[in-house]
Amino acid sequence: MSRSFPNLDEYINSVRLEFEDKLGQFVEIPTISMEPERRPDIERGGDLAVDFLKSVGVEAEKAPTAGYPCVIGHLIRDKNYPTVTVYNHLDVQPANPEEWESKKPFTFFNKDGRYEGRGTTDDKGPALTALYAVRYAVENQIPLNFRFLWELEEEIGSPNFDLFLKNRKEEFNTNSVVVSDTIWINRQKPAVPYGLRGLLTFTLNLETGSKDVHSGLVGGAARNPIGELSKIIAECYDASTGEVKIPGFYDDAVAVTEEQLQSFLAAGFDVDRFIKVYGFNSIRFSSAADVLKAIMSRPTFEVHGITGGYSGIGVKTIVPHQAQAKISTRLVPNMDGKKTFELIKDFIEKRNPDIKVNFLSAAPPYLGHFDGPFADAAREAMQFAFGETPAFTREGGTIGACVSMQKYLNAPLIFLGLSLPEHGYHEPNENYDWQQASGGIKMFVKYFDKISKLK
Amino acid sequence: MSRSFPNLDEYINSVRLEFEDKLGQFVEIPTISMEPERRPDIERGGDLAVDFLKSVGVEAEKAPTAGYPCVIGHLIRDKNYPTVTVYNHLDVQPANPEEWESKKPFTFFNKDGRYEGRGTTDDKGPALTALYAVRYAVENQIPLNFRFLWELEEEIGSPNFDLFLKNRKEEFNTNSVVVSDTIWINRQKPAVPYGLRGLLTFTLNLETGSKDVHSGLVGGAARNPIGELSKIIAECYDASTGEVKIPGFYDDAVAVTEEQLQSFLAAGFDVDRFIKVYGFNSIRFSSAADVLKAIMSRPTFEVHGITGGYSGIGVKTIVPHQAQAKISTRLVPNMDGKKTFELIKDFIEKRNPDIKVNFLSAAPPYLGHFDGPFADAAREAMQFAFGETPAFTREGGTIGACVSMQKYLNAPLIFLGLSLPEHGYHEPNENYDWQQASGGIKMFVKYFDKISKLK
Repeated sequence: MSRSFPNLDEYINSVRLEFEDKLGQFVEIPTISMEPERRPDIERGGDLAVDFLKSVGVEAEKAPTAGYPCVIGHLIRDKNYPTVTVYNHLDVQPANPEEWESKKPFTFFNKDGRYEGRGTTDDKGPALTALYAVRYAVENQIPLNFRFLWELEEEIGSPNFDLFLKNRKEEFNTNSVVVSDTIWINRQKPAVPYGLRGLLTFTLNLETGSKDVHSGLVGGAARNPIGELSKIIAECYDASTGEVKIPGFYDDAVAVTEEQLQSFLAAGFDVDRFIKVYGFNSIRFSSAADVLKAIMSRPTFEVHGITGGYSGIGVKTIVPHQAQAKISTRLVPNMDGKKTFELIKDFIEKRNPDIKVNFLSAAPPYLGHFDGPFADAAREAMQFAFGETPAFTREGGTIGACVSMQKYLNAPLIFLGLSLPEHGYHEPNENYDWQQASGGIKMFVKYFDKISKLK
Repeated sequence: MSRSFPNLDEYINSVRLEFEDKLGQFVEIPTISMEPERRPDIERGGDLAVDFLKSVGVEAEKAPTAGYPCVIGHLIRDKNYPTVTVYNHLDVQPANPEEWESKKPFTFFNKDGRYEGRGTTDDKGPALTALYAVRYAVENQIPLNFRFLWELEEEIGSPNFDLFLKNRKEEFNTNSVVVSDTIWINRQKPAVPYGLRGLLTFTLNLETGSKDVHSGLVGGAARNPIGELSKIIAECYDASTGEVKIPGFYDDAVAVTEEQLQSFLAAGFDVDRFIKVYGFNSIRFSSAADVLKAIMSRPTFEVHGITGGYSGIGVKTIVPHQAQAKISTRLVPNMDGKKTFELIKDFIEKRNPDIKVNFLSAAPPYLGHFDGPFADAAREAMQFAFGETPAFTREGGTIGACVSMQKYLNAPLIFLGLSLPEHGYHEPNENYDWQQASGGIKMFVKYFDKISKLK
């Protein structure tokens, strides 16, 4: 068994106010990487992160990339200690104030340990949680060195992270990587994902003219770009089942094994709760196995929005002159983003050559292992902090940086996420809570202690 | 031949500044019937219209309806004179300032006789043009009485006009009706439509949950309402050809005769110019006959917009929880709006019972005659004012009030429109011009003179 941790509970209680204050400061800087006009906020968020790291003794800096900077840090205490690299991201999704109960997504609300605001759970809260565990580890002589990679472009698919890490990989010599940006299936049962879906994003653009025109004058002869995009979308996939109809789309997708499926099911998944937590009226499947397969190990075709045309009250009888569909597909092992994009592009352009299929981003899927000493350390740490061994699952989401870290750091990568379904990842009223933060500090302390003994 | 008109050209020149001033006052009141918050503007626009009518000696008032008021007026000079009722509308389409060159759709710009602003051509300019012809007719003893029906709900399908006119039809005892709200095919060739398409508007609403959810978490299992609406739209019609695939949709549609088609073609229609004026890149058909059939005498299925989901920059990877499609179909004789709506609703709800098909409005198609003394008077008036006999066409647009006037006033209805394709009906940068206004005054004077002699 591991050694005991002197005053760990006292430590956790003593840092609570400080943790909440720092999280509030983080959340109130709208580091929305998707909105170009937010660059000053991204920079400010990066500066604040550097300050936070320095306050714990980390040698930190805002390192430039071709896009937004990456906050990096090193805390090398003894060259003989093993080193762990902690990955989080500090950029956030956009937020529409109208959809939030508070109407203020970038005002931090602390309601008795429930923290509300954009970025609380994704991923500023987990980043700070890991940082407070690092501080404890340092103050209590856990023999481990730390490095930090706090990205500011994760929500736009980490377009510059790969090259950045490739150029500076020598600085990040490490024995393992821990990523804290994933979600449990159920508050009662910790989950440790060992794989992620990739993400390919693109738009379909169709311009049939230079202006919207009165449909009484031209309707019948004029092309309708929304109608044509609807048609092509219906040719690409059957929205009722989610089945993609593009020949070859599934060719490289590796099907889930029965053993993997059983491991997913052990995470405590319940279809009714899934429906309730996410506020669905109904979903495409009824059994837990079908739902888990669909969200963890099957590729998707998803339409996020169609713009163009009239969006006000009532019906304005124009024939729109242009339309855009915003689309993504989640990729599973062994699908390749570029290859999948070319397949989709060819399919669409053969059917409607006027549609421009524009590549936006591709993050490959990631598949790790759920055995070995690091996975064992994760098991023990979760058990220690939350009283339950974790289920090893795969995550339907995407963290583009993982594939780059796997490629350049050549070290095992473990996902120790703390977010819950009810935290509202990417949703209005996003939140995080002290229960997960305090348990998370405990978990990281235990994990750091375990891996400090691995060579 | 008709008698001469003393000093008509001088009269027209002398009222130009006054006409422009009044049009500017009209345009700068945003009488957008589609936006409920504009009621005060609608009321102000109605008050101004009453003032304008009174300034010409018309006994005018703002008459209430169940919705927005209707401005009515009577100028009964001699009970032995025949009476003409002049119909126009003073409400306008919405306007997005961003899409306008001026960024100010409700600021009136007069650029050397080119009048820009929302409502200039549809239909405030033609309303004032007719009014200045009435003033001349009165001042020059043309033996005719006048009534006015200036509607403020035309752009939302005249929902209350039918009942309003039914209740007050005794007050509108008239020998004929003239409607000035239609568009020529070509500036060089006046056009007098003798038929209009009807318009059925409705929305498709699909709500699959209560909030947008991160597609990494639920994508694959979650339903996608935009995907499902795209699918049903593609089942309803083939956007490439415009062909509606709903069984029975075309059953009641009367096909155009060869004679009618020849009359359409005589209006000076040119496919290349049509493409140029409306700014199209390409259209569905290549021959003039096919295009004219499609816009004048075939029903349509038109998607005006799909809302729901993400509409900002880039791709936000959410699964939307609801989506709405805004749709209309243009109706041709002898299609019935309610029957067509039920047909579409049944078709959609059988395929996807969660989609709510919401009726918004139905205006029936209108079919008149292109012979008889009033049509002859229109021919002569157009020839007199513009030097060309008009082509008798059908209009692809819809004026719901026409069917009500035909029903309750029991008098011939003639369309003397003045708008041109380049005026940008319902479009950004809508405009009107002094050439059409001055010619229009001349045309109405001649027309009033001709019909003053008809019993």
